[in-house]
Amino acid sequence: MFQTKVKSEVLKEVVDIVGTLVDEAKFSVGKEGIALKAVDPAHVAMVDLSLDKGAFEEYKADECELGIDIDKLKEVLKLARAGDIIGIKHDEEKNKLILNVGNITRRMSLVDTAGLSDPKVPNLDLPAKISIKVDELKQGIRASESVSDHLALISSPDGFEMFSEGDTDSVNLKLSKDLLEKLDCKEKVRSLFPLDYFSNIVKVISTPTTVTLSLGSDYPVKLEFNFADEKGSVTYLLAPRIESE
Amino acid sequence: MFQTKVKSEVLKEVVDIVGTLVDEAKFSVGKEGIALKAVDPAHVAMVDLSLDKGAFEEYKADECELGIDIDKLKEVLKLARAGDIIGIKHDEEKNKLILNVGNITRRMSLVDTAGLSDPKVPNLDLPAKISIKVDELKQGIRASESVSDHLALISSPDGFEMFSEGDTDSVNLKLSKDLLEKLDCKEKVRSLFPLDYFSNIVKVISTPTTVTLSLGSDYPVKLEFNFADEKGSVTYLLAPRIESE
Amino acid sequence: MFQTKVKSEVLKEVVDIVGTLVDEAKFSVGKEGIALKAVDPAHVAMVDLSLDKGAFEEYKADECELGIDIDKLKEVLKLARAGDIIGIKHDEEKNKLILNVGNITRRMSLVDTAGLSDPKVPNLDLPAKISIKVDELKQGIRASESVSDHLALISSPDGFEMFSEGDTDSVNLKLSKDLLEKLDCKEKVRSLFPLDYFSNIVKVISTPTTVTLSLGSDYPVKLEFNFADEKGSVTYLLAPRIESE
Repeated sequence: MFQTKVKSEVLKEVVDIVGTLVDEAKFSVGKEGIALKAVDPAHVAMVDLSLDKGAFEEYKADECELGIDIDKLKEVLKLARAGDIIGIKHDEEKNKLILNVGNITRRMSLVDTAGLSDPKVPNLDLPAKISIKVDELKQGIRASESVSDHLALISSPDGFEMFSEGDTDSVNLKLSKDLLEKLDCKEKVRSLFPLDYFSNIVKVISTPTTVTLSLGSDYPVKLEFNFADEKGSVTYLLAPRIESE
Repeated sequence: MFQTKVKSEVLKEVVDIVGTLVDEAKFSVGKEGIALKAVDPAHVAMVDLSLDKGAFEEYKADECELGIDIDKLKEVLKLARAGDIIGIKHDEEKNKLILNVGNITRRMSLVDTAGLSDPKVPNLDLPAKISIKVDELKQGIRASESVSDHLALISSPDGFEMFSEGDTDSVNLKLSKDLLEKLDCKEKVRSLFPLDYFSNIVKVISTPTTVTLSLGSDYPVKLEFNFADEKGSVTYLLAPRIESE
Repeated sequence: MFQTKVKSEVLKEVVDIVGTLVDEAKFSVGKEGIALKAVDPAHVAMVDLSLDKGAFEEYKADECELGIDIDKLKEVLKLARAGDIIGIKHDEEKNKLILNVGNITRRMSLVDTAGLSDPKVPNLDLPAKISIKVDELKQGIRASESVSDHLALISSPDGFEMFSEGDTDSVNLKLSKDLLEKLDCKEKVRSLFPLDYFSNIVKVISTPTTVTLSLGSDYPVKLEFNFADEKGSVTYLLAPRIESE
């Protein structure tokens, strides 16, 4: 059994967060909320999302797994205005998801969960931790985009830096410790990332929130933030590109 | 003789209503106003428009026929700001239309009316009549677009429904009698229409007005509404697609 | 030495004015301000710009020449918000331009000035002079665009006219003397210009300013205006197309 009502804004955040990496995803429904783990087709990035039942207007569920086509959710969300409540119900007999927006009913086929991956989130010990306003990350990405398709994230005890280098030009965003929300870093670390992936991940963070980055040297970056009034939490992992120098 | 002044907003509505079906049209000018009938090149939809001389700021005309390239009218309208008055005058000697917007004068060649069709509007006896807010129709169309390229319009004594069915998903908009402006329907009727045509027709209705649909089973739909402060009236007819089941 | 701070709005105007004709340009830096002359690759139009040091927030400079890729300046400007101050500094040792916006630093390679032209501005004696609001020019261009790819500029002792003629249609914008800011014209003159060039030049004039046109018969048009609170001045020259009749 799965029968809920949820604000369109909350569902839209889930869809944006997941949809930047995959087209289809396996939602694990439980009594206390839903959870989802997914890895992108190139195995470069991973998302781990959980949304507490408190984020829903109504929530009745037994444990089950639902394979959902993210684009179809987007189509339904386009029909909703701000403040609209979306009804979601699992028709177990026909194995369809029934969505309601206003006077509209969409009956949606589900994706076979057997074909959907269930990635293990690796346990990483990353030495540096930076809490930063998402708008700063977005500005650093925007600056890098015209210079290179890679981006180095660098942390030191003094501050945080985003650095991109092209054939002729380079660009960096430097934030000293006092411009960060929090900085926990004992020695300098640096990893290089594909800019498009990092950009796509950061772009989906719509609210002016704080993001926590965990960083090492030539290690993946972990990017964590909350959404839906702290009722939802997200962790992205993005693999580094090893610098050849 | 044809010499008028008209608010750009009114001319824009005429251009949108006609332009969704044809690129060129024969305007029948009379002493009491103008009228126009046109059928789209694929003979799927027809429009029948009339605009009373009261919709114009100034109107002096003898009976004549003017073949007009609708795209050229659009170009002139792009030069007008809200509230601008557009002068339109027929230069009979050179057979040109002279349009004025502010300090700009456009001299426009006319299209030979001999090549323009003059369709007969068929007399249809359609058993169901539904008056509905145009915004509801637009919402139903939006919902259908992601599912199918056809749309069934269904009326019953209880209400009105728009239904689309694709290979895996279906969507419907259901409005019970009390959500409609008016419903005059004794028994259930249903016809299927090409979604793109129905969408293009409904999209041109810019004001938040009420539309009257007349419907039968496997019959054309008639779509009527007024514009220009009730001084203009429009009837669209759209041919059904016969369902093969 | 070249070290300045400038409002992003002022730099944006310079970039728009120059960038409509060339991708790279040689900026002549002096103690009292900067200057620039450039001709487009097809040698149809020329720009002559000067910006007084008073237009800068800070200005320290010795005489030098800087070859700048205009697109790179555009990229930096995209990072600035309204009111942002942009720092510009020449790193002579590495021959790079260092730009600062907020916490972002862009190190930009310079273009070899040897490859950049240094056009001579011809001394023209043009008999007619018209001062006109730039919005009127823009409206005349918009009207012409749907009719032809040429535009005649016509001045007479009575007023100013923009005229375009296509195969079937023609359009003109007529402004009598009292609708112009100033008119100094003893006899009728007329020259024909490529509409795209004239349009691209007029489009970059962002502020609702007055433009002075100098005009002859089958002669280039000179287009002059000020920007940056009268601290910057621009002259465009555009070659005529000789009418074949």
